[in-house]
Order: sequence, then C-alpha cells, then structure tokens
Amino acid sequence: MTREFINTALRDAVAEQNTQSPDAFRSAMRELHAADIAKHLVTLTRHDAAKALLALSDRSQAEIFGHLRPHIQVELARIFNREQLATLITAMSHDERVDLFKQLTAEEQSALLPALAHAEREDIRRLGAYPEGTAGSIMTSDYATLTSELLASDALEKLRQEAPDKETIYDIYVIDEDHKLIGVLSLRELLVAQAGTRVGDMMRRNPVFARSGASTDTIAEIIAEYDLLALPVVDESGMLVGIVTVDDAMDVTSQSRGRSVAQFGGNASIDGGPDLSLRSSSFWNLFKTRVFWLAILTVFGIVTSSIVAGQEALLEEIVILAAFIAPIVDAGGNTGSQSATLVIRAMALGEVRLRWRDLWFVIKREIPVVLCLGIVIGILEIILAYFSKGIGIEVLLTVGISMAVCMIIGGLVGALLPFMARRIGTDPATLSSPMITSIMDLLGVMIYFGLAWLFMGHLMV
Amino acid sequence: MTREFINTALRDAVAEQNTQSPDAFRSAMRELHAADIAKHLVTLTRHDAAKALLALSDRSQAEIFGHLRPHIQVELARIFNREQLATLITAMSHDERVDLFKQLTAEEQSALLPALAHAEREDIRRLGAYPEGTAGSIMTSDYATLTSELLASDALEKLRQEAPDKETIYDIYVIDEDHKLIGVLSLRELLVAQAGTRVGDMMRRNPVFARSGASTDTIAEIIAEYDLLALPVVDESGMLVGIVTVDDAMDVTSQSRGRSVAQFGGNASIDGGPDLSLRSSSFWNLFKTRVFWLAILTVFGIVTSSIVAGQEALLEEIVILAAFIAPIVDAGGNTGSQSATLVIRAMALGEVRLRWRDLWFVIKREIPVVLCLGIVIGILEIILAYFSKGIGIEVLLTVGISMAVCMIIGGLVGALLPFMARRIGTDPATLSSPMITSIMDLLGVMIYFGLAWLFMGHLMV
Repeated sequence: MTREFINTALRDAVAEQNTQSPDAFRSAMRELHAADIAKHLVTLTRHDAAKALLALSDRSQAEIFGHLRPHIQVELARIFNREQLATLITAMSHDERVDLFKQLTAEEQSALLPALAHAEREDIRRLGAYPEGTAGSIMTSDYATLTSELLASDALEKLRQEAPDKETIYDIYVIDEDHKLIGVLSLRELLVAQAGTRVGDMMRRNPVFARSGASTDTIAEIIAEYDLLALPVVDESGMLVGIVTVDDAMDVTSQSRGRSVAQFGGNASIDGGPDLSLRSSSFWNLFKTRVFWLAILTVFGIVTSSIVAGQEALLEEIVILAAFIAPIVDAGGNTGSQSATLVIRAMALGEVRLRWRDLWFVIKREIPVVLCLGIVIGILEIILAYFSKGIGIEVLLTVGISMAVCMIIGGLVGALLPFMARRIGTDPATLSSPMITSIMDLLGVMIYFGLAWLFMGHLMV
Repeated sequence: MTREFINTALRDAVAEQNTQSPDAFRSAMRELHAADIAKHLVTLTRHDAAKALLALSDRSQAEIFGHLRPHIQVELARIFNREQLATLITAMSHDERVDLFKQLTAEEQSALLPALAHAEREDIRRLGAYPEGTAGSIMTSDYATLTSELLASDALEKLRQEAPDKETIYDIYVIDEDHKLIGVLSLRELLVAQAGTRVGDMMRRNPVFARSGASTDTIAEIIAEYDLLALPVVDESGMLVGIVTVDDAMDVTSQSRGRSVAQFGGNASIDGGPDLSLRSSSFWNLFKTRVFWLAILTVFGIVTSSIVAGQEALLEEIVILAAFIAPIVDAGGNTGSQSATLVIRAMALGEVRLRWRDLWFVIKREIPVVLCLGIVIGILEIILAYFSKGIGIEVLLTVGISMAVCMIIGGLVGALLPFMARRIGTDPATLSSPMITSIMDLLGVMIYFGLAWLFMGHLMV
C-alpha cells in the first residue's frame, strides 16, 4: 500500500469514525507514523481532529500531539475537556508536555493542575522553571536509571518494565544514592553482557554531560561532536536532572537555519533580544531593530556624500564622472560581500579560526583572486563604458582603474572584517552586507576621486 | 576526576607507552570517549598518534579514527603498514571506512585491497559507487535485519550475537527472502514483547524509507521530521541497501552551516558545481564563480550609469545632486536586503511557503514597517544633509523624499524576490545581496532623478 493510499484511508476513517469500531480505527492508525497522522490531522477541522485523537489510545494521542505545531496543540487542548487533557498530559513525554503547559493561559493552567497527579504536577513545575534557551528548557525527565550494584540480568528486567514510560532506554544513567550521575551504559552493552556482571563494572565513568544552564546551541554541538543519542543534564551539585535527546538537538539546529542570513542581511538583533521573525515579531521590534541599523548606515553615508559634495569643482567640469559613482562603489561592495561570506562560512565550518595563521591563509588565497577579478571587471567596465557612452580615454582610465582598485581593496577588507568581528567578540554574520557596502562606499569614493584628480586634475587649472 | 586531569594522564600515558603494560594503557583509554581521545591525538606528532592507536584494540582504533578529520585520517593511514591498515579498515564502521578508502590514491587502494577479505572488498566497492551528495554516499551497510517468522526471544538472541558488528541494533529492519524491506522494529519493542511473539506481528509495516539517490539534505529532513535514529535506504526495486544514522544526518546539517550566507553574499555555485570553499576550492573555481556574478552585476550597472549619464544637463545645473546618488540607492538596497533575508529565513523555517496567502501575509507585515522606516530615515537624511552642507530646500526635499520612496519600494521588492526565486525553482539564498543592491540601484536612480525633475525641472528651462 502506498503512503497516499493510506492517507486517503485515514481521511475516510476519520470521517466515518462513528460507524467504525474503535479497534479497527486504532489498528489502521497503528500502521502509520505519528508524524504522518499529525500532518493529516491539520487538514481536518480542529473539532474533527480532536475527535480522531480521542478515539486513539493515550499513548498514540501523546505521540501524535508531539508532532503538531505549538499553536495547533493549544487549539486542540482547548477543545479537550479537563479529564481528557489531564490524561493526555500524563501520557506525553515530559519535555513536550511542559512546552504545551507553558502555552496555556494562567487560568487554564490553574484549572488543569488539580486534575493531575502530584508527581506530574511537580515534574511540570520543575521542568517549567528553567529559562528558555537553556538545556533545562529542552530536556526531559523521563530517563532510565540504574544503580551500580545491580546485575546485568536484573538491570535488563528493570528496563523491560520501565520501557513504556521512558523517553529512551538506549542510554541508561547510573546514579548514586544522592541521585548524582556517576556513569552511563548503553542498552547494547547491557544486552551483550554476561548475566552476572555488575552495572558498576560495565559502565563508562566520566560520561559526557552538560549543566542545566548551558545554551541549547552548546547542547546541540556536544551531541553532534560525541555522536550521542542523549546527553545527560546535571545541576551545580552534579545531580542528574534530565536528558536531551538527539531529535531535540536536531530541532535546535533546524531552528537556527536561515538565522545567519537574516543577520547578515542587516537584521541582527540589538540588546540581545530574540531574532526577528516575520511570523512572530511585533511591529515595534521589527521597526526598532531595522531602523537602528539603517540609521547607523545613513549617518555613515553622510560622510561619503560629504566627500562627493566636496568634489563639486571637479564634477562641474567633468559631469560624466557622476554616472560611475554607483557602479564603482558597488563593485567594491560586491567583491567585499563575496569575500566576507566565504570567510564567514569557513568560520562556521571550523575551517578557519581566529588565528594569525588562518588570517594569513585567507589573505594568501584572496590576493590572487581579487587581483584577477579587479583586472577582468575593470577591463569589462571600460569596454562597456566606451561603447555605451563613447567617453574620453582619461575618464575611461579613471573609471577602469578605480573599479579594479576598489574591488581589490574591497575584497581584502571584506575578508578581514569577519576576523575583526570575532576579535571584538561578535558573531561575524551580524557584520552585515549593508555595513560592508557602506564601508566600501566610503573607500570607493576616496579612491575614485583620488584617481580622478590624478588623471584629470590638470584640466582644472 | 576532571576531564583536564584525564587528558593530562592520557598525554603522559602516550609518552610513557613503552614502559606501561598495554592492558593498563587500554583500560585508561576505556574511561575516555573516543572523540576526546581523537582531540588529544591531533596534538601529538602523527607518528606518536599512530603508535598510540596501534596500542589499542581494533575496535577502539576504529572508533577513534572516525572522529578524526579526513586529512588526518589519511596521514595516519599512510604511517600504518598494510596489515595494520587492513585490520583497521575491517574494524571500522562501513560508511567511515569507505570515506577513508576514497581518500587514498589509486595505488594505495590497489595495494590495500588484496589484504582485505572478499566481503570487505565487495562492501567497500558497493558503497563507494554511490555519487557524492546522495543517500548512498553517507549510508552504512552494517545494519541489523530479521525475518518475519522469527520469534521475539530468538530475535533478541540473534541481535545479542551480532551487536558488536552492527552500527546500531536499536532500529531493526525486517526483510523478505529477496532482501526487500517489509517492516521495521525497535529494540525497545523487542525487549518488551512476549518471548513467543512473531516478529512479523510486531513490526511496523510501511516504514519510513528513502531511495539511494535521494539528496543528503532530504535524508536529514526526513530523519528530523520523524525523529528517527536511523533511516533505511532502498534501491529502485525496494531492496534494503543501507541505513543512515542520526549522527550522520546531524553532520549533514552542520556542514550546511554558513552555506546560505555564502550564497547570499554572491558566491552561489554556477553549473551545479560544489560550493566554494576557501580551504578546498581551486583558484580557478573561486575566480570563475565570482567573476561570473560580478560580470553580470557590472553589465546591469552599466544600465544604471547610462541613466545617470543621460542626466548630464540636470547634473551640470545642480551638481550637488551627485553627492546623494550613493546614499539614496544604498538605502533602497539596505532595506531590500533586510526584507529579503527576513523572508529567506522564514522560508528556511517553513513559516512561509510559496503560496499567495503567505505572499500577502509578508506584504501586509512589510508595508507599515517600510513606510515608517522610509519616513524616519528620510527625515534623518534631510536633517544630516542640511547641517553638513546647508543645501537649498528643493534639493533637500528631493533627497529626503527619494530616500523614503526608495526604501519603501526597496523593502517591498526585497520581500518579493525570494518568492520569485522560489517560483523559478532556485534557492532563494542564491539571489544575492549584490543582486538586490544592483536592482535597487537601477530603481533608485530612476526615482531620484524623476523626483529631481519634478521639483527642480523648472530651473532648467
């Protein structure tokens, strides 16, 4: 059966739910992945979706719910009555239910809490207390633990019993009587071990771990570096408080997709606020951040226009010079943009770091490239200018050489800027394309009019 | 013991390796994670590192090797003799050894192959045949399989035996007699099941899978969407040929970090070639790609400069107009860059798609923001221009209004460009910042001089 066929069957099943037996419906759903069911549920009305969910087992409901986008989860939760919601919350994985809980209003939360068991209430309260953006905010508390003196066979039996309630049993954490993390063991190792081996003799001491205050980006990096399925999180005293599973780490990296591009485009958040988002940022935040950067660039630009204004005498004499201001300063900015972003990428991949050796490496690569780029494009510009305007040779030379020099200097400056950004401790991507353009505008007009005086100053006397 | 303390102990252990017993050394190493040992090995000379590795078990060597960067793997492999290398290759996970093999020269490969067992040679040949960038190039062939009629207890025993040789036993693939993928089962489910249950009755039919020709980006997306630990890969006939594990999917997403920024900066590869890289691209590739884009922009820029050249009469009369060309067209480009990158990010996060509804949503958000930005910055520019040059009111008005109009139009055009890129099937990030700047240059000079004629044309008659 193809996926499409099954999805159609699902739609029919939901529509005819009342006439079908719940068992038939549930076993049809069992064939599908929770993520696919979730994708289909969002095409139904919220009430039909809620009806379909409530016809499934608690565990299925919980699994599917986790694949729904936050705002849809909230809408559905509001259709459930209190008992249904409490049942769902109890069945959900601990990290996902805290995320849902935090999206409810204060009244809804207070109304819900009494319907939950004490253990659930405490767990939600504890997990919910961690600040956003930290390991605590994405970790879950339904991890598997063992103590050192257990034997392998008993440990396996314990995991067999607890498996339905744990986020993962593939990485198991060994704790002492103070609930401090002292070792880690994989289910694979446990399975392969002799039945009488002590857990304490099998475990890896000094496991990789993170503190609850670590940033989510750090968590994702650690999980990627050590190829972990889960990363244990401890508090300041070393007590195990939760784990972050690899799928949540992948979500962290997905959510930072496009972030560097937005920063590089000139939207880097000021005052450490959250990133701008077309979907969720307020008008005021969008305006405030953007006007900040644009204003800085405008002030910078006034310096540039003052320089050009100061050249009134030359411009009056050779008006055609004005036509090439924009293309020349642009060429410098474009080359600089190319160079800067190549360096930014190399830094993001760890191929280039803040070291003199790497700076020298980058310069050595850039010089021949931007030299050839400047010469080729300079010649191209001279040819195009000659045929489209038929200008005198001195202007052509000024334009061509200015363009080449601008591009060479622009490329090198562009390659250096990410190092400077790193040096002062900012993310190189926040040093934006508009900023590179503005810097090159300034350098560009100085080079251009400097060369203009050199070649044509004699016309002014 | 802290990690630093252990790393120091490791360094001492390697240095004194000859005086220590191999067992003591090996059990000291067992306490450390392979990734940490790898990080430390790179601080030693290659020969010392090779010596340290060869003192460890085959399995440890293989695990540590996988954490070393490719060029370091090759250097170490060349220090190993043929038998040592063959042992290492046999112990390595199947995907990592193919990557190492492909980095050897043809002579080195021919010299090595006879030292390997037939099964290893065949496996390396098979896996190595898949094109770079496809699922086949990152998948591994050491996955666990079961057949449907096996009982749970026998299946567990089979996995217990095979565990040391498999990349993962947490997701197990059920195949028929033609090696076609018919279902998937997790170790957790197997562990919890009653001993006499048939595998065929427990497995999930219609598992999520990918074809060997799928792109690595698609693989990473599927693994992220379904929260998989591994994704099975099949050929056109449905035969299972490999799996991609979640850690390799995370590597795929890490390697695309900064890619969009580099493309947006004007380095998008032409002719479908590989991305530009400062570390690994040849001079010719760097030059060829960059000169392509810069040449296009230069030709585009000639149009802009022709328009300005055509305004010679106006410029001769009011030379000061030339001073503001760059700031005004820049303002349009900067606003456009901000808008475009916000949309690009929203698209990367799936918050905005190629739909009329989403286009309308973006325009509705942009209009009030760019209106206010244009007005505020236009006024700022007028104030700055007045105080720095003391210019006449008509020029000030022309400049201020041009700037505002450029920014408003620039912002809206910038927001639309990613949609247009998507519409013609290109990645919106390849539509670069330099391109946005060039488009806004053209629109900008038309607006600027149009308004100049409007306000000051009377001075010309």
